[in-house]
Amino acid sequence: MDEKLLELEEEIFDLIEKKRFVQLKQILSEMQPADIAEIFDEAKDKEIPVLFRILPKELAAEVFVEFDSDKQEILVNAFSDNELREVLDELFMDDAADIVEEMPATVAKRILKNTDANTRRMINQLLAYPEDSAGSIMTTEYIDLKRTMTVEEAIDRIRKKGINTETIYTCYVIGSRRKLFGTISLRDLVLSGRDEIVGDLMDENVISAHTLDDKEEVAAMFERYDMLALPVVDKEGRLVGIVTVDDAIDVIQEEASEDIEKMAAILPGEKTYLKTGVFETFKSRIPWLLFLMISATFTGAIISTFEAKLAQCIALVAFIPMLMGTGGNAGSQTSVSVIRALSLGDIEFKDILKVIWKELRVSVIVGIVLGIVNFIKLYLVDYLWLHTFDTGTEIVEMATICITLICVIIVAKMLGAALPIIAKKIGLDPAVMASPLVTTILDAVSLLIYFGIAAVLVL
Amino acid sequence: MDEKLLELEEEIFDLIEKKRFVQLKQILSEMQPADIAEIFDEAKDKEIPVLFRILPKELAAEVFVEFDSDKQEILVNAFSDNELREVLDELFMDDAADIVEEMPATVAKRILKNTDANTRRMINQLLAYPEDSAGSIMTTEYIDLKRTMTVEEAIDRIRKKGINTETIYTCYVIGSRRKLFGTISLRDLVLSGRDEIVGDLMDENVISAHTLDDKEEVAAMFERYDMLALPVVDKEGRLVGIVTVDDAIDVIQEEASEDIEKMAAILPGEKTYLKTGVFETFKSRIPWLLFLMISATFTGAIISTFEAKLAQCIALVAFIPMLMGTGGNAGSQTSVSVIRALSLGDIEFKDILKVIWKELRVSVIVGIVLGIVNFIKLYLVDYLWLHTFDTGTEIVEMATICITLICVIIVAKMLGAALPIIAKKIGLDPAVMASPLVTTILDAVSLLIYFGIAAVLVL
Repeated sequence: MDEKLLELEEEIFDLIEKKRFVQLKQILSEMQPADIAEIFDEAKDKEIPVLFRILPKELAAEVFVEFDSDKQEILVNAFSDNELREVLDELFMDDAADIVEEMPATVAKRILKNTDANTRRMINQLLAYPEDSAGSIMTTEYIDLKRTMTVEEAIDRIRKKGINTETIYTCYVIGSRRKLFGTISLRDLVLSGRDEIVGDLMDENVISAHTLDDKEEVAAMFERYDMLALPVVDKEGRLVGIVTVDDAIDVIQEEASEDIEKMAAILPGEKTYLKTGVFETFKSRIPWLLFLMISATFTGAIISTFEAKLAQCIALVAFIPMLMGTGGNAGSQTSVSVIRALSLGDIEFKDILKVIWKELRVSVIVGIVLGIVNFIKLYLVDYLWLHTFDTGTEIVEMATICITLICVIIVAKMLGAALPIIAKKIGLDPAVMASPLVTTILDAVSLLIYFGIAAVLVL
Repeated sequence: MDEKLLELEEEIFDLIEKKRFVQLKQILSEMQPADIAEIFDEAKDKEIPVLFRILPKELAAEVFVEFDSDKQEILVNAFSDNELREVLDELFMDDAADIVEEMPATVAKRILKNTDANTRRMINQLLAYPEDSAGSIMTTEYIDLKRTMTVEEAIDRIRKKGINTETIYTCYVIGSRRKLFGTISLRDLVLSGRDEIVGDLMDENVISAHTLDDKEEVAAMFERYDMLALPVVDKEGRLVGIVTVDDAIDVIQEEASEDIEKMAAILPGEKTYLKTGVFETFKSRIPWLLFLMISATFTGAIISTFEAKLAQCIALVAFIPMLMGTGGNAGSQTSVSVIRALSLGDIEFKDILKVIWKELRVSVIVGIVLGIVNFIKLYLVDYLWLHTFDTGTEIVEMATICITLICVIIVAKMLGAALPIIAKKIGLDPAVMASPLVTTILDAVSLLIYFGIAAVLVL
């Protein structure tokens, strides 16, 4: 929250305490819905219905949409049927469906009971689409035009239907059975002559999505084609709804958060950080931690196997963390880059050889540079100054460490490049192949390389 | 690239080879700029100017904007002054400024020479804004209206000025010296009566940004307030430009990529994965790898210090990777969650105690669960089956490992929570406090805890 908003918050709570509702109403009516929702968030549960009733009708509905589902439930329970109907009337179809979806069954039932038959049918239809589909984020209110209309007729229709439509800036030209023929922007309508015909002006190369397309792909289309709204059609090419750019932005942020969480071995959740309870947070984190902890047993087993030999050459133990750490970091640099490129659509499965070839060259350069720096450091610090190494075999021990380092970096970057791409190909989520899992695999691989090289050179 | 586009690409290259340019022109004119740019990307450098000249003028400019700077440079060098002027005429000011910024000095000079004095002045003005500021992503063409205009006059002005303006959907009501009084959407204009007065209809609670505001904050405002365009004003409140939603989406994606790269210890770059050269990739990855490798020396030094004692109780060495790994994973789960919440604006410095208190509770539950699971596994697998532990002290050794595990998890989550918030407070980038750095710190801390507890209980 910025400072201006914090000041406003103080003023508002001061007015609430003094019960100066007239002044409060004036301040609130000039604010943005998202800001009001954030301030109401700090209010006591009992105060919320009171505050909400102060708001003008349209603003009230907009604020209602911004609340999280807990607050919405409190409000719906406090509303009379009349009040509930008033708020529902102002909502866009996609928002209404989202709210019904989040509510407990009894509350959802009461909401549906208070909508007209047509709205109820639409909400139920939207709720039937799979969770991550284009259908689940679209709204069913849009401006439809006919090919034969003049620009003047089109604008008249927009003036008549526009108030209840989320966007009027892109209009959809449809034929019989709602078949989508083309789109025309309000911009083109306003900039054209009043007598021109919609069918001549419309853009027939329509970019559209199918109801079952992944919402992530839909959001990517907004980014690629700089659109304000995208039509959604069913298998028969009939227009069933539109997705607007504000929902696409939400999807982009959600997907980025989800990727980031998966990369950090967290099961992605829907709530914001502070709104997620302790136990919920625990549940999202424990599965991967358990899995990774058990996996680390293999690393332990490898060390145990070499225990007797390690006891003879204990100096080498001190370098295990550095080798495993550098391998892990080098691998996760690559896997994270590749995962992000996959999710932005910059690379695909067919690029796998290009990616591996690039990473091979990068890893050789990185490996050699780190190997040399490490050798210098070992020689100056560990050998000359600290006398870490055993007399007689010091050079071989140092060489073992540096050669291992180079090999580990190359293997780390190869695995980091290949695993996410292969995961995507076989239908797994590439983001899961980020740091923690790759690091755990690399820990075991690094040790095997280390002891393998050591066995030849030293032990 | 999806399949339809791949097929189209084949067809296009087939037509190029057969030099059937008429048919080619027809296909290309119906395609989206971003798709054309992607297909041209596969063409040879020599072919690009030829292909480009096939495109209709307006589309050509749109495709030009979608190219990366290498391709743009090739084209500018191939253009005659006349062709260059034609493309430049079609560009919006913000795109023109971006292109000039990316070009080598001589090419930039030639571009500026071929624009009129007014455009040149605007481009130079845009280039003067700092790299990550609102000013650097805004455009200077917008529809400005006067308070005294009627709706009809306003729409007339839009019809006159609209063709050269990136968006006409939000119009800006200004007074003398371009002072911003309010905004009015084309929606409101179209839905209102022709004789109504702009000053009565306009929204005076304008959300605006300052030229020097961080572009990340600007993008966040689009998400929060569901806008299509945001006015940018200077210190005196004069309107100097607008940011459109498509540019905000690009900023959101860029910032997410940047955060993800920093979390993986990569210096963020601007190009896509495959477009970044091997040496550039090397340069973005080596600094953190070097730093982290050198830091890992401390972990090594800690092990060396305990070397003599470790040799006596070598069984404990096998559990170092599991303890360090779990600590690292637990810490990065928290730090990544906190970093993302910070960049989405869900938490701020004032929430630091809330965050730490939450993480403390989570870490205690996580620690106890993992500690118990680990004890069971140690007892069944390592003690009963593999006989890893020394006879006589086995229970103490197992207890050491489990107590260390619990402590490490708690410390890891505390550090993971606190470091990013503190980093942000003192003006550092919180994303840098993600996995790799936190893990390296935790590696050393874990070992100290391990040996500390072992010293008391076992050694």
